[in-house]
Parts: sequence; C-alpha cells; structure tokens
Amino acid sequence: MSPHLLSVDSLSRDQIDHLLRVAARMEPIAQRRQVTRVLEGAVLGNLFFEASTRTRVSFNAAFCRLGGSVCDTTGFTFSSMAKGESLYDTSRVMAGYCDAIVMRHPEQGSVAEFAAATNVPVINGGDGPGEHPSQALLDLYTIDKEFTRLGKPLAGAHVLMTGDLKYGRTVHSLIKLLSLYAPMRITLVAPPGLAMPDHLIELVASRGHRVEQRDSLASDYADVDVVYTTRIQKERFTAEMSEGFSLSRDFTVDRAFLDRRCGRDTLVMHPLPRDSRPEANDLDVDLNGDPRLAIFRQTDNGIPVRMAIFATLLKVDELIEKDLRPVRWFVPTRVGVDDAVL
Amino acid sequence: MSPHLLSVDSLSRDQIDHLLRVAARMEPIAQRRQVTRVLEGAVLGNLFFEASTRTRVSFNAAFCRLGGSVCDTTGFTFSSMAKGESLYDTSRVMAGYCDAIVMRHPEQGSVAEFAAATNVPVINGGDGPGEHPSQALLDLYTIDKEFTRLGKPLAGAHVLMTGDLKYGRTVHSLIKLLSLYAPMRITLVAPPGLAMPDHLIELVASRGHRVEQRDSLASDYADVDVVYTTRIQKERFTAEMSEGFSLSRDFTVDRAFLDRRCGRDTLVMHPLPRDSRPEANDLDVDLNGDPRLAIFRQTDNGIPVRMAIFATLLKVDELIEKDLRPVRWFVPTRVGVDDAVL
Amino acid sequence: MSPHLLSVDSLSRDQIDHLLRVAARMEPIAQRRQVTRVLEGAVLGNLFFEASTRTRVSFNAAFCRLGGSVCDTTGFTFSSMAKGESLYDTSRVMAGYCDAIVMRHPEQGSVAEFAAATNVPVINGGDGPGEHPSQALLDLYTIDKEFTRLGKPLAGAHVLMTGDLKYGRTVHSLIKLLSLYAPMRITLVAPPGLAMPDHLIELVASRGHRVEQRDSLASDYADVDVVYTTRIQKERFTAEMSEGFSLSRDFTVDRAFLDRRCGRDTLVMHPLPRDSRPEANDLDVDLNGDPRLAIFRQTDNGIPVRMAIFATLLKVDELIEKDLRPVRWFVPTRVGVDDAVL
Repeated sequence: MSPHLLSVDSLSRDQIDHLLRVAARMEPIAQRRQVTRVLEGAVLGNLFFEASTRTRVSFNAAFCRLGGSVCDTTGFTFSSMAKGESLYDTSRVMAGYCDAIVMRHPEQGSVAEFAAATNVPVINGGDGPGEHPSQALLDLYTIDKEFTRLGKPLAGAHVLMTGDLKYGRTVHSLIKLLSLYAPMRITLVAPPGLAMPDHLIELVASRGHRVEQRDSLASDYADVDVVYTTRIQKERFTAEMSEGFSLSRDFTVDRAFLDRRCGRDTLVMHPLPRDSRPEANDLDVDLNGDPRLAIFRQTDNGIPVRMAIFATLLKVDELIEKDLRPVRWFVPTRVGVDDAVL
Repeated sequence: MSPHLLSVDSLSRDQIDHLLRVAARMEPIAQRRQVTRVLEGAVLGNLFFEASTRTRVSFNAAFCRLGGSVCDTTGFTFSSMAKGESLYDTSRVMAGYCDAIVMRHPEQGSVAEFAAATNVPVINGGDGPGEHPSQALLDLYTIDKEFTRLGKPLAGAHVLMTGDLKYGRTVHSLIKLLSLYAPMRITLVAPPGLAMPDHLIELVASRGHRVEQRDSLASDYADVDVVYTTRIQKERFTAEMSEGFSLSRDFTVDRAFLDRRCGRDTLVMHPLPRDSRPEANDLDVDLNGDPRLAIFRQTDNGIPVRMAIFATLLKVDELIEKDLRPVRWFVPTRVGVDDAVL
Repeated sequence: MSPHLLSVDSLSRDQIDHLLRVAARMEPIAQRRQVTRVLEGAVLGNLFFEASTRTRVSFNAAFCRLGGSVCDTTGFTFSSMAKGESLYDTSRVMAGYCDAIVMRHPEQGSVAEFAAATNVPVINGGDGPGEHPSQALLDLYTIDKEFTRLGKPLAGAHVLMTGDLKYGRTVHSLIKLLSLYAPMRITLVAPPGLAMPDHLIELVASRGHRVEQRDSLASDYADVDVVYTTRIQKERFTAEMSEGFSLSRDFTVDRAFLDRRCGRDTLVMHPLPRDSRPEANDLDVDLNGDPRLAIFRQTDNGIPVRMAIFATLLKVDELIEKDLRPVRWFVPTRVGVDDAVL
C-alpha cells in the first residue's frame, strides 16, 4: 500500500478486504465499549480547504478514538496559500508538524499534488469532482455489514443506484469497489443526461457483473437488495431534459416506492447530506424511523472505517487489541429503530 | 434527569443541588491541583452555529479537563445545513460521532429540536432569546460559593437585578433558579419598558420570595448582597423611554454606586462580555481590582459547573475521585485581588 | 524569566541558552521516537485574532506532543471583542479557562496588554509589526543545529540577510538574538529604502560584531555560511526605488546565485510562507530538493522550540525525561534530501 489513500483505484481487493477486516475490529471502540491509547502523542492535520463539517468531524473523532490529537483547519483562512504558497511548501511544512494529514480541497488533483511532496500519510477527504475514497469504503463496509446482519451473501447481490449518476462522485467510487467483489447485478436508474459514464459501465461489465440501465423508478424492483440514492441538483437539468419527465418526484425514493416496488429487506442508502426541504426531491423524510433506512447506520460506519484507514496507514492495526480498556462513561441506546446498536 | 440539559425549567431542586455538589467536587481539577482521565476516549461535539468564543472555550476546556477530546464547529461553515439538511439529520449524524453535544444556535427551540432526535446528551449552549442553562447554573453556583466564603446563609439573601430585565436571558433563568431556594428578597431595577416580565415576578412571588420593583439605582441598597447587572443595549431604547431618564449613567453600576449605596460586602456580577467602551454605560471598569467585583470569579466557575454537567449527564460523577493524579505543571497565582484562588 | 514570552528583548543570553538546550532535549519527541504525557490535563488557549495557519498548527501540535489539549480560536469570530470587550476582560476570562495562552493579533502591543492582566503564561505569536519571538528562537536554533551538523563553530559565522530588512519583523528579532553570541560577521543586502534600521545595526556593532551593508547580491559571498532571505513585497517599492534596479531578480536567491556566489555548504533560510508564483521573486523553487535549502528543516524546528517554550514557562522541562514512552505508530522517512532526518 502506498503511504497515502488518494483514490479507490489504487486499492487492490486484498487491501480493501484488509481495511474492512480492520474496521470490523474497530467496532468495540467505535461503539464505545472500549477505548484505546495506541496513537497517544500522534497529531492529525485535518485540513479542510473546503467546508464539510460532517466529514471533518468524522475524521477528527476517528483519530481521537485511537488516542491521537487533531489540529483542524477550515476554509481559506489557510492564509499562506492565499499569499501564493505552493501545495508543495504547505505539504512539506505540515508533514513536519503532523503524523497524518486529511485534506479536502475544491480542486481535483490538488490532494495528490500535496501528497506527492511527503511520505507522511495523506488521506483524500474529497477533491472536488475527483475522489473521496473513505466515503466509498464506508459505503462498501455498510453493504457488507448489513448483508451479514440479514444473513445474505454478497455474491449475487442486486444493487440499484439512482439519481445523478453522471456527476455523483460517490456512486462512481462505489461501483468501482463493488466490481471487485463476487458477481452482482447492478441496475442504474438516472434521468436522461445524468446516466453513469460509459467507461464505468464497461469496467463493471468486463469484471463479470450484470449491469442494466433503466430510466424510471416506476418498475418492479422486488429483488433489489440495496437502493443507493443521490440527489439530483436542479442546476443539472437542461430545458430538454425537463420536458421528458416530472422533476418533482420521478426519481425520489420514498416510503411508497419502497412499499410498492421493493422487497421487505431492501436497504436505502445515501451519501448525505440529504436536502430535507420538500422542493428538493431528495430522499424523502417519510422513511425516517423505518429500519430499511440505513443512512444513519451508514454515517455511523464512517468512524470504524476511518479508524481502520488511520490504523492501517500508521501501522498500528495489529497493536490495538493489546491496548484496550473498558469505557467508563454512560453510553445511551440509540433513539430510533433505524439505528444501529451503538 | 432527561439525557439532555436544555432549560433550567426541567431541573428539580434536587437535581440542581446535585449539580452544585458535583461542581464543588470538580474544584481541585478546575483549580489545577489534580487531573483526571475519566473521559479518555470520549468525544464532545461542540457545535456553535452562532459565534460565542467564551462559551465555546469554556465547554471545550471543561471537557478536556475530564480527559475527553473535542471537535469544534463554529459558524455556518456547517455547510450541510446551508444545503438544506434538517436538524433531525444533523443530530442523528453527530450522535454517531460524539458522546455528548453542546449546541448554540441563533433560533429559539432549535436545540430542543436537535435533542429530540437523539439519546446522546445534548446541552443547550444558548438558543437565541431562549435558554442558556449552564450560565444560570454557574451564576447560582457563584452566589452560593461567595456566600459560603463570606459566612452568610443563602436564606434571606437580598439580590438586586438591574439593567435590561425584559430581554436579558440570563436574569430570567437565574431568577427561576433562585426561586427554588430559601426565601430571598429580590429587587428589580429597570428602566421603563425593560422591566422583568410579569409571569416571572408572579412565579417568584408565588414561591414565597419578596419581590420589589424600582426604577432607579439612586436609592439605599445597603443591605443588598448581590448586584447582578446586565447591559442595556441602545437599540432597546424607544423615543418615549429616552425622555424619562438619562441613558448615560442612570443604570450603570460603578464604584461610586457601590461605595455610596451598597454595603461593604456587596458582590457585583455580570454575565459578560461587558462592553468596556465608555459610551456603552455597561458595568464600569473603575471597579477592576476591587474584591467586590465577582465577574471573573464568576467566569472561572464556568469550568467546574460545566464539568459537573458533563460528568452528571455521562454518569461519571461518582468515578472521578477514583481517577485523580496531581498536576505536574506550574500553576500561577492569579493576578488580581478580585480573583478567586486559582 | 517573566511568566510570559512577549519579545526577544526580555530574554537574557542564559535564558536563550536554556531554551535551546531544552529544545534539543525535545527532539526525540518532536522526531516521534518518544511520547510524553507530562502536560496531560493542561489546556492551551490558542487565540489567533489574525489568521496564520502555519503558526497556529505549530503551537497546537507542540502543546499536544507534550500531552496537553488545545482550544483554538481563529479570526474575529472572537465575537466578544467585536462587542466592545476589552483585552483586559478577555485576558482575565481566558486565564480562568487555560494554563497557557498563545495570542496573535494584528495590532502591535496588544499581546503585551493582554499579558499584563494575567499571570498565566502568554506567548506572543506575532503582534503585527511588533514581535514574533518563537520564530526568532527557531531561526537561531536552526543555525545552531545546522552548524553542529556541519562541524562548524558558531563563533566567526558569516550570516547574510537579504530582502526587506526594513519591515521584516523576523530579521530584526534574529539579528538581536545573534548579537548575543560569539562575534560574527553579518552582511546586510537590501534595496535602497529597505535597509536594516540604524539602531539595530548600532546595537549589533556595539556588541562586537562586524556588520557590513551592500546593495546587491552580485558579489562574492563564498564565505557566507547562512543566507537568510525574506520576501520584498511589491507594495514596499516606491517609484524612486524602482528606477535604480530591476525588481524582478536582483534580490532573488536561487540556485544560480548559490552555485556562482556562495560556498558548498551555504545554507538558505526563509521565515515562510514563500510566494512560489514566478512574478513574486521570492526564494526560488529551483532550490527545492537541494540540501542547502534549510527552510523545511527550519519549520520542523518550530516544534521542539515551541515545546521548549511551553515546557519552560510551565516548568516541566525537568520532568519530561521521567515521563517518556516509545512511539508505537509508523514514522516515515522524509521525502527529500533537503529534509532533516525526521
């Protein structure tokens, strides 16, 4: 494994399996039954040149739960870069302060440029339209964990992806990861003009998966195991596209869709944040509290997966089991039936 | 006790007494004679959707002194909410990352809405014109501690509240807390139009306290034990009000007022920040260095009180005594005679 | 030593020597061979009223590596001061929350005013055109360490300072520190109008050093040991000045200058950030990867030097050796030949 985690493309199936196994071993800590101090004294530079509170806090908390400390930076208050400092200089300087660096940046390729200047592990926390590998890994981890919970094998799984499949960074990375696993059936449902790029469809098909494209959710999806939905942003719609279908509800996943079209155990996932304003036509809030809604179990999984990434890159994945103590504070049960056991 | 601390209204006298007792037991840590590691591995989400550095740092430091780690968020860089994420979703996501959450938000009721979605303890750090319960608790704790220091009983205490008693969130919460204690005498001095709301006066009177309203500080207050002053914001003044009195000094507490009108031991409190610009007519700086000025002892008390809140909600209040070690670094004496022993 | 570190002027030669010795003893921690927990439970208030990510993260990481926790504040989201709170009040309040305070502020003198109100150690992290003592100390530490590495004595060293010597805060502080050491030769090369102030030249000369001023880098500097370069900001140029020389390259340190004019071991330093845009005429990127380029070793040294400042002010400098454990995570070798051994 490279010292960095920049893209899912650089990960072999073995490396992914290793990360998932380590993530599973992190669960007792992520679920607050145990604490570790294995990264005590280590410092994470959590550099967010673009705001993303959820991702920032998730990386921060994951590093803290390993016993480390975090230096956060948000926005272009990162003043030196405004003064013309190169990514090379910033990288060299930060590598002298920190033991690992998470970087989010609006420009594609910037994180890789930053990482090229250092051997200190750099994790891509999202580089604009580029990559966000920890999101893809937690999505895969969620599917794997949910299938285990439901007693279903991953081989032969039927995954439906819907919404903006053209620009959605998360579905691109997820489909690449899934393609490395046992043969699956993947159904893609997007409005015209927002279909999954051909090269990704070809990649997945070339690896022996069955890929099908449809243009409507008004169909029978009874054997779908996972509905992965992403929001369609209004600004993506062209005049031409808007004629062919109703923007309002055609690609919205809600309780009616799940009850009428899908199976009893069909899971709903979403990369979040979801826009809960009615006019947004994002994943509907009427599924809140429904155990099929896996979106909060999904974000919960961000902690063990990001812990696994840190532990693997910093090579403490074998040490943690020797450094565990019980949690002493009160850990509440979660609030909803759609929640994972915390 | 609910898993959350959203309002002083939800606290019984027993619960308040418990918090004050736990706060007193936190003093050796707050005063840096001892350190604990009882919350090691725990993560606080310190979510400030409205800037308030003082309150944010106070909660942050209190959690750190219990051995925990803190993820800070300031402002509406909380980008997901700008993208239409509901408080429900934000709450569910943050609860998966954190073991306790402090939230400050400009809109009244928003913290309660956030808290309703989770069992992870949520502390209201101020919701606009709503509540700020940790401030009221530290005010009460300060009065109790100062009375003990001066060898005076709380029963029969005479508390003067002055300034903007209509909009001042802190005086509303404090008067509610005080009303649960031994009969007191409470004098309210506000400009016309900024008087304490009737329902609060009635509440306090109904609990057996003697409440009196005056419209001027130019009177005899020799037997007042505590002067709690809040700033009158200019924008609160209407044309009508401004005629009746001089805005400039009539409601300003300064050394002359204390020397001429009050007793030798009369304490001066203020929720801070105070506006030290002369034209602000806030609590006067000519009292700096005077031991009667309790405002910095008051903010100091924010640490043990907030530690007590965390320790109680996370149920480690009985464990801390078993997990104490001496401080090893140098702790200076405080600078002023108006300081508490650090 | 005063409880604070506000200016290099307040430091005696003995105190400086002590700080450098303590910094050297911090190297095993800064280089991540060992960890300490000596400041466990201590809280740093890292108050940056002016953005400076590099300096903020460096102080933050240094405090964390001593085992402490950090509360960061950036910008004038420090809302109370916007509401008219005095530096006196802010200082008194923060001193109740924190065990040490780093403060950066755009106005000269503000950090000293803040520090005057408290006995809690305050470190000046830069007050506008005023002081930035930790930068000067890490510069001196770098020169001392590099000379030791090269087997050269500090006595008789030849230091060339170039760029904006009139407004450059760092060169002013560094020349004062150097003047306390064994006789050196100091050559100052600045454009007309940006020369080192006379009182500093007189000070250094009065302490037995040989000071020489030149107006061009086009000269023989074969016996120069250190080239300390600072950027000339365009806005400093007056019409008159611009006539006499080419702004473009005359004061730019690059590989050609080093190869043609200087010796084999001549070190290049810079306070950073450097502006890597070609039109900036800052220290040239063509030296990247050259072992004579000491700028990243220089920023690396910020960690042990700032650790030494904290340890000395908090009086734990003698305790750390008794509280060391080996690092358990993976520490990479650095990426470039110009890097220090991490």
